[in-house]
Amino acid sequence: MNALPPSQQKALAALFAAMPADLLLSDGEALERYSRDWSGDHYGRPLAVARPRSKEELSLLMGCCYEQQIHVVPQGGLTGLVGAAVASYPGGEVVVSLERMNKVRSVNPIDFAMVVEAGCILEDAKRQAEAADCILPITFGAQGSCRIGGNVSTNAGGFNVLRYGMSRDLVLGLEVVLADGQVWNGLRTLRKDNRGYDLKQLFIGSEGTLGIVTAAALKLFPKPTQVETALVGLASVDAAMQLYARARRECSDLLSAFELILRGGIEIALNARDDLHDPLGEAYPVYVLIEASAAGRVDLRGLLEGFLADASDLVLDGVIAGSRAQADRLWLLREMMVEAQGRGGRYLRTDVSVSISSLATFVTDTLDALAQMLPEAIAVTYGHVGDGNIHLNIVPPETMPPADFDGLFHAAEEVIFDIVDRHGGSISAEHGIGRVKQAAFLKRADPLTLELSRRIKDAFDPKHLLSEGRILASAQGVWNDAEAR
Amino acid sequence: MNALPPSQQKALAALFAAMPADLLLSDGEALERYSRDWSGDHYGRPLAVARPRSKEELSLLMGCCYEQQIHVVPQGGLTGLVGAAVASYPGGEVVVSLERMNKVRSVNPIDFAMVVEAGCILEDAKRQAEAADCILPITFGAQGSCRIGGNVSTNAGGFNVLRYGMSRDLVLGLEVVLADGQVWNGLRTLRKDNRGYDLKQLFIGSEGTLGIVTAAALKLFPKPTQVETALVGLASVDAAMQLYARARRECSDLLSAFELILRGGIEIALNARDDLHDPLGEAYPVYVLIEASAAGRVDLRGLLEGFLADASDLVLDGVIAGSRAQADRLWLLREMMVEAQGRGGRYLRTDVSVSISSLATFVTDTLDALAQMLPEAIAVTYGHVGDGNIHLNIVPPETMPPADFDGLFHAAEEVIFDIVDRHGGSISAEHGIGRVKQAAFLKRADPLTLELSRRIKDAFDPKHLLSEGRILASAQGVWNDAEAR
Repeated sequence: MNALPPSQQKALAALFAAMPADLLLSDGEALERYSRDWSGDHYGRPLAVARPRSKEELSLLMGCCYEQQIHVVPQGGLTGLVGAAVASYPGGEVVVSLERMNKVRSVNPIDFAMVVEAGCILEDAKRQAEAADCILPITFGAQGSCRIGGNVSTNAGGFNVLRYGMSRDLVLGLEVVLADGQVWNGLRTLRKDNRGYDLKQLFIGSEGTLGIVTAAALKLFPKPTQVETALVGLASVDAAMQLYARARRECSDLLSAFELILRGGIEIALNARDDLHDPLGEAYPVYVLIEASAAGRVDLRGLLEGFLADASDLVLDGVIAGSRAQADRLWLLREMMVEAQGRGGRYLRTDVSVSISSLATFVTDTLDALAQMLPEAIAVTYGHVGDGNIHLNIVPPETMPPADFDGLFHAAEEVIFDIVDRHGGSISAEHGIGRVKQAAFLKRADPLTLELSRRIKDAFDPKHLLSEGRILASAQGVWNDAEAR
Repeated sequence: MNALPPSQQKALAALFAAMPADLLLSDGEALERYSRDWSGDHYGRPLAVARPRSKEELSLLMGCCYEQQIHVVPQGGLTGLVGAAVASYPGGEVVVSLERMNKVRSVNPIDFAMVVEAGCILEDAKRQAEAADCILPITFGAQGSCRIGGNVSTNAGGFNVLRYGMSRDLVLGLEVVLADGQVWNGLRTLRKDNRGYDLKQLFIGSEGTLGIVTAAALKLFPKPTQVETALVGLASVDAAMQLYARARRECSDLLSAFELILRGGIEIALNARDDLHDPLGEAYPVYVLIEASAAGRVDLRGLLEGFLADASDLVLDGVIAGSRAQADRLWLLREMMVEAQGRGGRYLRTDVSVSISSLATFVTDTLDALAQMLPEAIAVTYGHVGDGNIHLNIVPPETMPPADFDGLFHAAEEVIFDIVDRHGGSISAEHGIGRVKQAAFLKRADPLTLELSRRIKDAFDPKHLLSEGRILASAQGVWNDAEAR
């Protein structure tokens, strides 16, 4: 706390004096653990770390921070990728880690609902749902580390959105501690409830800027008794999108994933692990990983086989997994590509969406433009194309000095986002804005959207103490991440 | 305008002077057409009726009303049942009818999305979706009269919620004119978009109190090529809910309706039309109307038959429709019951929800309590029980003088809502609050929910000119509907 101005030191001292002894961490080694996100790209040292065990404890903390004008940022699993959850406010922030509020409060397989605390790791919640013969269908790579509060606050997406929706669609109720310490209790498992304004919607996807989610009631679904997985090779992204259009009609809402991977991505995976082999007889420009699932009396295998056989004009080759182990091997290609794409170093992540009908044109246009304008950049392209969502990432050439990375990333992002704009798309489909995408967001957002957003921020956090500077600019200006490294 | 104070008369004169000649109606006969809702229970004569043809025209109107401090209420098909859309502000309101903004702007069967203006009648929108081999799955009795803007503003539910969600779940984007005339353009068909606060959520379900929806982008689904409909007889509501629990697991997310009807409801339908016959061999205490649909290669008939055969411990008798015409006859029982339940007179509508697992107990407890405390009341019980949603309506005995109706309805509502409270349920599952449920809502809502709701209202409608007095109490107090009759 040495660099703090005296008024801040006094405020922090008052906070420590008012809180239970074991609520706050302040020693250097402990703070370090809450300073860097999963990607390694975002670093910010907190003033202190609060680890509440209950909403009451968090309420006490927030009330005191409100009084003392101390800035606060909630932290989940630090897998959000946009730098929202590490400390970053110029005057310093207290990090609230939800990790000790990690209980599954209830699972009800008749209501198809569960109530989970914000600090519960997604995979733990999913496991408890499965123990009750249900699924919690939020599914993505970071599920072993991310926490429910983060999933809700960022409206997390993932593989199963095309069937089950975004996190927003799965939230039945929320419990939230507000900036001033008041506890808002909206924790209900009702499927229908039209009593007045649906306040919980404001906390979903607002990245911790309007309140701190402490628990969520989530929709569950019957656990499928059959899952079929296929990998097919195609000539083009356009062919993949034609296949998707047919799949939606012929697979009768039983499609649970439709993942596009360009050949480059498959090669990254194959190079990363010796035990992975080219999945089809030869190489194809484009691959799609298809999953369908059913819980009941459906001949799912027959359905998928019939669908693929009828699509022989599009499908050049393909394999349907014969066992869960084979299906896992197919998914491993997808996972290894994501893990290995940056070769352990920095790379540019994008997460954009366009309408489904323009996705193929978007990908072609963007890859052409990148090849022309930034021929040195290696583009890795994959995505949840059933939702119109593409991750188009840029890896620097091995010979490029790290000092030049930022320039390359900035130039590539400009190229990609310009084409997103032309297609009326979104520069952030599922990752959110945080601090990393803030400049690009503010540049594009219309003034009325920003004005209404500011009014909401003022209504919920009048002192601007909560996750200040994420999504909307802080009065202190846009925080420069580079300063923190 | 005779009874208006001079300042209001001046304001209205300024409005008429500033608007195009054919935008506003003010003659008595015309105003009468926009004064009474579909149920006939709610009446309010507007100061004038504005019928904008475009968002620009509405923007002009709203800007002028804002300047002149004239109160405004948007009006769709007047089928909302909670008295929100008829003029009711004590000082008078201008009604904005969206009926001339009724175009379907686009239908895209690849994006599975359509863009529809607020004044489009739901059934017209559904028809245009079907012409593109898609469905817009908002489905309920009033679909031939209600309008899309009303569906969005009230977060309409209906028969297909258990599979496709509420209206909220189907909205991809909105275009909204704000209280001060500014146009907010959030009309996008992206499936995923996590750029900042999701402002459209605020306009959905807020019953016109935060802005006037002028157009909506809506999710579509593949049009099913197979629909199977069954009506089964059961011994109890508990048996029906057990059957539902199995149906969710065994019908593999292909279940599109699960409607409970108690025997009394079937009898109302049979008495209403000579050409309707008891659908099963004998009478059963409880019926369920089940619909499943699939778009592709699924043996749907076999699935439903197998499911019902295995449920022979619960299902006492049943029929699966052999044709679309037979299915329509089964649905006709449901529709005729709703239409005929009040014998053309007034009756109490309730629209409550509890958790699915407590629905059977809730119904039994409530019917027992009503029978004991208000033995003269005729209870008609049916609902979308797959969502935990029950309509428990009270019809006065034929011998009761109309002057006693209000007393009976009030007493019955107290009985029903008390039991809803004990089950942690909602007093408004899908109809909203409007003015009719306002007193009951305000009595139960926690102070923080109301405080946050008021802050949102202030942020979006600082002069409180828009649908004032719906959901939240107006500074003028709670409007008494009886005054208007």
